[in-house]
Amino acid sequence: MSRAFNFSPGPAMLPEPVLRQAQAEMLDWHGVGASIVELSHRGPEFIGVAAEAEADLRKLVGIPDDYAVLFLQGGATAQQALVALNFAEPGQAADYVISGHWGKTAIKQVKPYVDARIAATSEADGFRNIPDPSTWRLSDDAAYVHITANETIHGVEFRDTPKVGTVPLFADFSSSIASEPLDVSKYGLIYAGAQKNLGPVGIAVVIVRRELLERAGQPRADIFDYRSHLKGESMLNTPPTWNWYLAGLTFKWMLAEGGVQEFARRNAQKSKMLYAAIDGSGGFYRNEVDPAVRSRMNVPFFLYDEALDKAFLKESAAAGLMALKGHRALGGMRASIYNAMPVEGVQALVDFMRDFRERHG
Amino acid sequence: MSRAFNFSPGPAMLPEPVLRQAQAEMLDWHGVGASIVELSHRGPEFIGVAAEAEADLRKLVGIPDDYAVLFLQGGATAQQALVALNFAEPGQAADYVISGHWGKTAIKQVKPYVDARIAATSEADGFRNIPDPSTWRLSDDAAYVHITANETIHGVEFRDTPKVGTVPLFADFSSSIASEPLDVSKYGLIYAGAQKNLGPVGIAVVIVRRELLERAGQPRADIFDYRSHLKGESMLNTPPTWNWYLAGLTFKWMLAEGGVQEFARRNAQKSKMLYAAIDGSGGFYRNEVDPAVRSRMNVPFFLYDEALDKAFLKESAAAGLMALKGHRALGGMRASIYNAMPVEGVQALVDFMRDFRERHG
Repeated sequence: MSRAFNFSPGPAMLPEPVLRQAQAEMLDWHGVGASIVELSHRGPEFIGVAAEAEADLRKLVGIPDDYAVLFLQGGATAQQALVALNFAEPGQAADYVISGHWGKTAIKQVKPYVDARIAATSEADGFRNIPDPSTWRLSDDAAYVHITANETIHGVEFRDTPKVGTVPLFADFSSSIASEPLDVSKYGLIYAGAQKNLGPVGIAVVIVRRELLERAGQPRADIFDYRSHLKGESMLNTPPTWNWYLAGLTFKWMLAEGGVQEFARRNAQKSKMLYAAIDGSGGFYRNEVDPAVRSRMNVPFFLYDEALDKAFLKESAAAGLMALKGHRALGGMRASIYNAMPVEGVQALVDFMRDFRERHG
Repeated sequence: MSRAFNFSPGPAMLPEPVLRQAQAEMLDWHGVGASIVELSHRGPEFIGVAAEAEADLRKLVGIPDDYAVLFLQGGATAQQALVALNFAEPGQAADYVISGHWGKTAIKQVKPYVDARIAATSEADGFRNIPDPSTWRLSDDAAYVHITANETIHGVEFRDTPKVGTVPLFADFSSSIASEPLDVSKYGLIYAGAQKNLGPVGIAVVIVRRELLERAGQPRADIFDYRSHLKGESMLNTPPTWNWYLAGLTFKWMLAEGGVQEFARRNAQKSKMLYAAIDGSGGFYRNEVDPAVRSRMNVPFFLYDEALDKAFLKESAAAGLMALKGHRALGGMRASIYNAMPVEGVQALVDFMRDFRERHG
């Protein structure tokens, strides 16, 4: 079989040139006689790969010098716990704005450590919108305010950075980092699992304003201490070198394609095409999210008759359109269309959806 | 350049057939139209890969049914902290036997959580031996006794499982798991980073007697809770799928080669060859470890004149023998000869060492 258009929410589709390069270098990286996955993280070869990846990510995302960048294990979920350990006093207040499943996960992780407060939630609306920032109940004594920039399952996305006063804003950007220009300076901390827009699974990125690292935080093991990871240049212990390398190749690909400006353009085009196909289907397909906060990355949609779901999944797979099944929490369908998904992939999906509707409508 | 014999301590050499298979499958795994690194961890394809890897590891190591197996991120160092959080009451005693650098790391990680006691240490001897178990000061009230089965830097290895009474024995087996038969039932918990004997970097294995998971442990985030990981089948959050897959391929390779019995034979042969070359060099090379506890996995050695170190490293690299430089804590040389290092690699090293000695002795 040739390569399909893969709409998986993460681990997600990777750029084919990145996979081809990794394939070509698999047994012998740059003529050194070994794979990158076999090289010591302390050797000059991998140290070069790691440094280039950080420099490229800084350029790609536009990370100011007063922000540190960490490449860590544990995914975004581990960072959800670690931000409380690193930046809040034991039992200190921390404000959470919940706009979907991952916001709920974030607050669950920190409950042993902080006075986790729900500043706002759109759960009563089935997470079909984002609570209006004017209604948020923020605490002056909070260690931070936490938001989920894009909710992968519910398909809602902050289209503007909320203003939260002097308390630093922490954001889970796992599914939208590097998808459009981002003003990092508005955030105290940004974290992201790489497996959606930044490359492969198995590595997460933390971008943190350096001055915040002066906070004492809570008693914790050295391996849970962001300051130690920074001092150790994200090599406090053996890092996931292959994953870091593949993320670095992905950063280079994104820069070569035109950077976040170009991906913002493509992502706007792709998501508009898909929402138009849904909204223009006369009710055959529907997306229930408030159009003002619809995600450009994850598009959940439902067929008017769920009895057709099985046929939709079977026929779409046969047409080379992979992984369209919705998350079990919502049912229906979901198309994740991150940076590596080409416009042609969304065009193929839209064409299939029209054809399917004509045959089953 | 062709592939070198890579003596890196970890990330380490992988079996060439494993790399070749990963290379062949890089763009399209088993005809599904996507790479394994692009597939959802919730899909049937990866769930199958994960389940096979666990079954193969159980067969390879001989893990009894009353032991759970977890595949986790964070390396062995994260597990060093997590064992305290999961199995000790806050401030409870925990006994550590220190026989090298990694034992020191282990005790450092748990200091915020337990009353970490040094039951014995060979530091005064430069970690050239292992403290005699008859001298260990063990506590009846300890949550566990922790040892490092093989010390990667200092090159010392427990050749027998110490008897520690009723307190469960926890062991870091990062650099010797699956290198010879192991009686898992003598341990309460075994953990290992995969990047030495089990495959690639970026994934760690925890083998734990199920009944120990009933302990309350300490307040901790769900993501730091082994019980939650077990319930979630090591997919509590997105696991490092590619690393898990590559570890699985390595398990299959080890089983096909004859399993741990065969690797025990090869590893005994390889290490005997190398120690004989050192001991028989008339003092040109020396290894300072007590022969009774010399590691079969990591062989540190020194040249009689350290002024020759640079030439040794340059000439060995030119001869296709990679990564022989010793750890900065010890200096000199170190040859790591895990399962994936063929006998031919050690023969090439021994031949080079004799030749080098004849030219420089």
